[in-house]
Amino acid sequence: MLAAIFEHGQVTVQEKEIPSPGPKEALVRVHLAGVCNTDLEILAGYVPFTGTLGHEFVGRVVQALEHPELVGQRVVADINCGCGHCPWCLQKNHRHCMQRKVLGIRGLDGAFAHYIQVPVANLYPVPDQIPDEDAVFAEPLAAALEIGQQVHITVQTRVAVLGDGKLGLLCALALSLYSPRLRLFGRHPAKLHIASAQGIATCCLWSGQIPGPEDTGFDLVVDCTGQAQGIDTALDLVRPEGTVVLKTTSTDPSTVNMSRVVVNEMSLLGSRCGDMGLAVHFLAHRWISVQPLIHKVFPLSSTPMALDQAGQKGALKVLIDCR
Amino acid sequence: MLAAIFEHGQVTVQEKEIPSPGPKEALVRVHLAGVCNTDLEILAGYVPFTGTLGHEFVGRVVQALEHPELVGQRVVADINCGCGHCPWCLQKNHRHCMQRKVLGIRGLDGAFAHYIQVPVANLYPVPDQIPDEDAVFAEPLAAALEIGQQVHITVQTRVAVLGDGKLGLLCALALSLYSPRLRLFGRHPAKLHIASAQGIATCCLWSGQIPGPEDTGFDLVVDCTGQAQGIDTALDLVRPEGTVVLKTTSTDPSTVNMSRVVVNEMSLLGSRCGDMGLAVHFLAHRWISVQPLIHKVFPLSSTPMALDQAGQKGALKVLIDCR
Repeated sequence: MLAAIFEHGQVTVQEKEIPSPGPKEALVRVHLAGVCNTDLEILAGYVPFTGTLGHEFVGRVVQALEHPELVGQRVVADINCGCGHCPWCLQKNHRHCMQRKVLGIRGLDGAFAHYIQVPVANLYPVPDQIPDEDAVFAEPLAAALEIGQQVHITVQTRVAVLGDGKLGLLCALALSLYSPRLRLFGRHPAKLHIASAQGIATCCLWSGQIPGPEDTGFDLVVDCTGQAQGIDTALDLVRPEGTVVLKTTSTDPSTVNMSRVVVNEMSLLGSRCGDMGLAVHFLAHRWISVQPLIHKVFPLSSTPMALDQAGQKGALKVLIDCR
Repeated sequence: MLAAIFEHGQVTVQEKEIPSPGPKEALVRVHLAGVCNTDLEILAGYVPFTGTLGHEFVGRVVQALEHPELVGQRVVADINCGCGHCPWCLQKNHRHCMQRKVLGIRGLDGAFAHYIQVPVANLYPVPDQIPDEDAVFAEPLAAALEIGQQVHITVQTRVAVLGDGKLGLLCALALSLYSPRLRLFGRHPAKLHIASAQGIATCCLWSGQIPGPEDTGFDLVVDCTGQAQGIDTALDLVRPEGTVVLKTTSTDPSTVNMSRVVVNEMSLLGSRCGDMGLAVHFLAHRWISVQPLIHKVFPLSSTPMALDQAGQKGALKVLIDCR
């Protein structure tokens, strides 16, 4: 099979043996995979990893020794593989297992390949009505939906999402189901239009649009800027006793005036991966439309070009077709 | 009357006219006042303020035009005076009123004086069984107790308080009533002893005591270090999905690796003033003993020396006797 392997600081598409899954694992034929900013951070050497890249994918089970009923099933997967016996795993919270491995990120080969090996416990069936081009968004959509699992968002909650990149758009689309009082702030009219076409109020703050009184004092602000100092704008927008959800994993440290957080009793809340089942549920009902986020599709053999494209300023979701 | 006035960058004790309270205000004869780090920050010019310093105090009402029943009553006071008609004030959350004035900190004269003028709505009666030397701690104790109002602390909650200064000690003493699983981390054996003498487990991390497995993975960590980078140690001690309460109001910005907060889905929560009624309730029941925190008492005429003493390394609570 072909696989896009990161080693010695570069990505090359190589011939490689098809994995031989153990009894509790499945072999999945990858259909489509998505490029995430974390992949770009691995390329930049910020996250130590060697092996096949990629953790956003949809594919079909071709082998599952202890679960033959899964063969032929289309699936997506939770990327976090816990040790199975620590207190976190015993509470079914393997996402925070200290010894966890993560597909394509930490200790396990990823999905930019013809085949990927995945623990059966991590698989989520994909109903027939979800096309591959939607299902490939399950992992980042789960991360967006995680916010609603961490914070109680009601019809009264005034939500601001900061950043009109792919994660910002997914957060705005996902959270708009929880609160009609949501506003997306961005820099790019074309990207903001993807959200406004789905009924979301937007504000292009950085291009001279004057913010009105409705553009401040938010109960909940989600920082998806991808910038270490995005938190400053988030703190400008949130009300006293409000919450800033941090989605940005910048490798640069943030410099924060914490006295402002203390005096206004604000809350800063980190947010990472979410429940894949909920994301599949959302996609199956077509409550939001994710395909407008697709920027370009590359064949697996052109993965290095795909990664280069994904790193260009303004790029949305780049997909890799492994079929 | 005498008052310790901060103007032109220095504090002088001056003769001044006794205030003439309006109909909704009371005139209070100050008995004892406490020096807070915020007073020292005002001296250092970090907080703009001109007038009589001091916001921690206990005294006796000597005049209250519309509330003659208050005359003779011993009182402490909520220091935040809201505008009375904004949404925050209408929700009785005047502590976050954007136009608020604050006794001895913002726009209103404080308590390092023979007399202070206070809105009647801000007064809390002090029961006879609470001596002045306890009651003067009501304001900082309320700030410590605020944590239990923001976070649900149960018998299962493993709490770490970082910093054995006056606020750290008060937080440890106050929160020990909510959780028996509390540990105070500090640098000074003598200060830690004030807490351990009241049954609190302590750890002198910085003096070479080796932290054990019980010294990490806390559900809740309270940063009372007073240092901008105290947050780093707090993040070392908190578990994934845990909460760091920020009590430090340093004027230096903090440099924080926010990716760590995001990946571990931690929560950072600012915390400021609290409910004075709850603090008086605690003091009346003698659930904790605050007098061991008293470092030294100075007469009002020696306020500049008192402030100097309070600014010395290792000083605990310095009081000013205005009787």
